[in-house]
Amino acid sequence: MTTLLHIDSSARSGGSDEHRFGSHSRRLSRRFVSGWKARRPGDAVVYRDVGAKPPEAVSGSWIHAAFTPPENREHWMREVLAESDELVDELLQADVIVAGVPMYNFGVPAQFKAYIDNIVRVGRTFGFDRSRPGEPYWPMVPADKTLVILSSRGDYGYEAGGRLANRNHVEPGIKTAFSYLGITDVHSVAVEFDEFADERLQASIASAEGVVDKLVADLSGRAGKERAA
Amino acid sequence: MTTLLHIDSSARSGGSDEHRFGSHSRRLSRRFVSGWKARRPGDAVVYRDVGAKPPEAVSGSWIHAAFTPPENREHWMREVLAESDELVDELLQADVIVAGVPMYNFGVPAQFKAYIDNIVRVGRTFGFDRSRPGEPYWPMVPADKTLVILSSRGDYGYEAGGRLANRNHVEPGIKTAFSYLGITDVHSVAVEFDEFADERLQASIASAEGVVDKLVADLSGRAGKERAA
Repeated sequence: MTTLLHIDSSARSGGSDEHRFGSHSRRLSRRFVSGWKARRPGDAVVYRDVGAKPPEAVSGSWIHAAFTPPENREHWMREVLAESDELVDELLQADVIVAGVPMYNFGVPAQFKAYIDNIVRVGRTFGFDRSRPGEPYWPMVPADKTLVILSSRGDYGYEAGGRLANRNHVEPGIKTAFSYLGITDVHSVAVEFDEFADERLQASIASAEGVVDKLVADLSGRAGKERAA
Repeated sequence: MTTLLHIDSSARSGGSDEHRFGSHSRRLSRRFVSGWKARRPGDAVVYRDVGAKPPEAVSGSWIHAAFTPPENREHWMREVLAESDELVDELLQADVIVAGVPMYNFGVPAQFKAYIDNIVRVGRTFGFDRSRPGEPYWPMVPADKTLVILSSRGDYGYEAGGRLANRNHVEPGIKTAFSYLGITDVHSVAVEFDEFADERLQASIASAEGVVDKLVADLSGRAGKERAA
């Protein structure tokens, strides 16, 4: 059985296929997950909506607790790390992470950055040892996981090589953080032209949905083969 | 009179010159502001600590309210935008913005991204008109403001051209968002080697403090000349 972790981070509720001011990234993530379930109904899906419920930003107490060895942690430290532990557990249990992450002001929404800041955890998702020869860090997340980033942008040309590529800090920022944890198999699809609300937006949605469907076919087929192997 | 907006966003309290686990970015921002005040005691300083009190992440209601013309806003809309309005007012009143922004997981802390998401406000800091010929956006913040980014990183080599430059989403992400608003005079200084806690960290702090002092001399001197002109 494969486990999907379905994350949404848009501040908007509902997909843009549900109502006029709905979210394109929610629309794509739901399409991905429902397409996957149609092909592999026995797979598990865990849902995490950081758009509706932003995780707490990392605090001084959080840092203090996280850098205290687990066996030395006091009660308040375990409490302050409880949400982070839950998010890390979900991540480690997932085989495929499907993250709806719209572009807000050229980067990920604050609520998705809060998610990242909570899953990058010393001793759980990355290791750190100052006395280690060479790099003092190493990834602790098993390398067999796949991340799918489903995004949405108001303007257009943010893709690699595009006219605004150097202003896009969404996929590059996510990839850098996740690769640090050991997650390097990353796929991404984005809707563009949202703010123009014209036929170019409609074409971009149709194109993105086609890529999502193809990704679902490819990745779910691969999951089937790995299971049979 | 010049007005400084002093922002801190580190989750840690106090500067690293105050206690062992204090913040380097807070240390640099306080040094900048106290150096400025020593030279220009009549200038005003407004302080905003988004590390201690993270702004609310942007919500669906926030977006709805922000895109409703001010004259049509209902009471709940003005309430949901109150914090954003306060942050925008502070930004517009400032001549020099001094922002302590440590690198968290290769990007800005979630609490600083929440700040950015709250100051990028249609009709207040940028304009948007879909029917406008050419670009539908324009910056609304007067171009005479200066932004100083004071950062801190665990590892080293994140500067432009450095070995980890492509993993640094802090200064590039901030510059992209602020330039969209019209703030393009940006200076930045960073402490590196924090996680090694050895003589390289001490050298990096000393060097960063030197650059901060020089920046204070240059920028406060410029403010004096502009006033005299």
